[in-house]
Amino acid sequence: MSNKPILLYTGRTPNGFPITILLEELKAKYGKDLYDYQAIDISTNTQKEDWFIKINPNGRIPAIIDRARGNFNVFETSAILLYLVQHYDKDLEFGFDPVKEPDDYSEQLQWLFFAHGGIGPMQGQSNHFNRYAPEDIPYAKKRYIDETKRLYGVLEIRLKNRDWLAGPGRGKYSVADIKALPWVRIHAHSGIPTLDEWPNVKAWVERSEARPAFQAGLNVPPA
Amino acid sequence: MSNKPILLYTGRTPNGFPITILLEELKAKYGKDLYDYQAIDISTNTQKEDWFIKINPNGRIPAIIDRARGNFNVFETSAILLYLVQHYDKDLEFGFDPVKEPDDYSEQLQWLFFAHGGIGPMQGQSNHFNRYAPEDIPYAKKRYIDETKRLYGVLEIRLKNRDWLAGPGRGKYSVADIKALPWVRIHAHSGIPTLDEWPNVKAWVERSEARPAFQAGLNVPPA
Repeated sequence: MSNKPILLYTGRTPNGFPITILLEELKAKYGKDLYDYQAIDISTNTQKEDWFIKINPNGRIPAIIDRARGNFNVFETSAILLYLVQHYDKDLEFGFDPVKEPDDYSEQLQWLFFAHGGIGPMQGQSNHFNRYAPEDIPYAKKRYIDETKRLYGVLEIRLKNRDWLAGPGRGKYSVADIKALPWVRIHAHSGIPTLDEWPNVKAWVERSEARPAFQAGLNVPPA
Repeated sequence: MSNKPILLYTGRTPNGFPITILLEELKAKYGKDLYDYQAIDISTNTQKEDWFIKINPNGRIPAIIDRARGNFNVFETSAILLYLVQHYDKDLEFGFDPVKEPDDYSEQLQWLFFAHGGIGPMQGQSNHFNRYAPEDIPYAKKRYIDETKRLYGVLEIRLKNRDWLAGPGRGKYSVADIKALPWVRIHAHSGIPTLDEWPNVKAWVERSEARPAFQAGLNVPPA
């Protein structure tokens, strides 16, 4: 039995990486390794098996079990990020206090929901039609590339004179960024070869990739 | 100049209705009308005009301005719901306390993100391909109906022996429900004629529709 509190079920996808990145950032900040992980092989539909559905009824990675809090389960990437900040980031290095910083917390939620309901689902559909669909459907390929580009344009405006999406001044690196970046950085995989059209977005991706913990998170599970 | 705190920009869509439903619920609970609204005609792309982009950089309804808190802007349906509960629902009738009820709050967030990143985007794509797309694409029509049905199946399991998605026991009517219900109740519009396959989901929709404030919210803006 591990003495680490978090058991993470994950895979090498832009939904899994936000969690491993945050856990690696927490390790770098506090000097404590919080998690074990179990890699879930989505190609064999492990995530649809009964034991996993009990942990995440939606049958998707990521999901966590918190052994230190009565084996509490959390699913949905963004809900896990907020949970980990609340319980394991006591200095709020990667988030905001909902009570003492309500406006910053709301800003963070706004960009978190923007990423969760916009970039993830739409770029995911672009991946499907441009890479995986059994039929060649030009209308759908174009629809989702165009929508993903539009969403990058929204980020571009937001990131003018800012380093990060939420927080005062130039912003603070937070779970809003950590949620969105693993999707945006694989733009080429989704049919958008370069970020040259969105220089603020490009610089934001480079800024995140310069963080050792961000890189460490991208290596869990190892390729 | 209105003396109501909230100015809401909205339209008759399943993204707008959660906000009007919650505002009508708050009116019924506290006896105070909190909002004016401005209907945005999305058919003429008003939501893409410069003045609106300053309020919601994503160019979508809904968005709010809170005149009582320095004209603070909030966009993204789910972020607005959480904001309104935090600032205008002092008894937390429609939500949970992140500090005192962290597990219930997390459960609420998990289902809120499930609805925000799953039901909304996927059912929205079903609407597009089954009703609005200029081309008839059977593969995409089926893909999004199938995915929406799968998501209803997840709700069906969650709602076994429960009245509402989050909270102890049979649950508490919260913003998690208020976010998801305006999408699920228009299943027929999205290519799923009945909810008979998901009796718990069907009863949940009927339970919500029996609430006068829920009905009142569905009439803003009037048809």
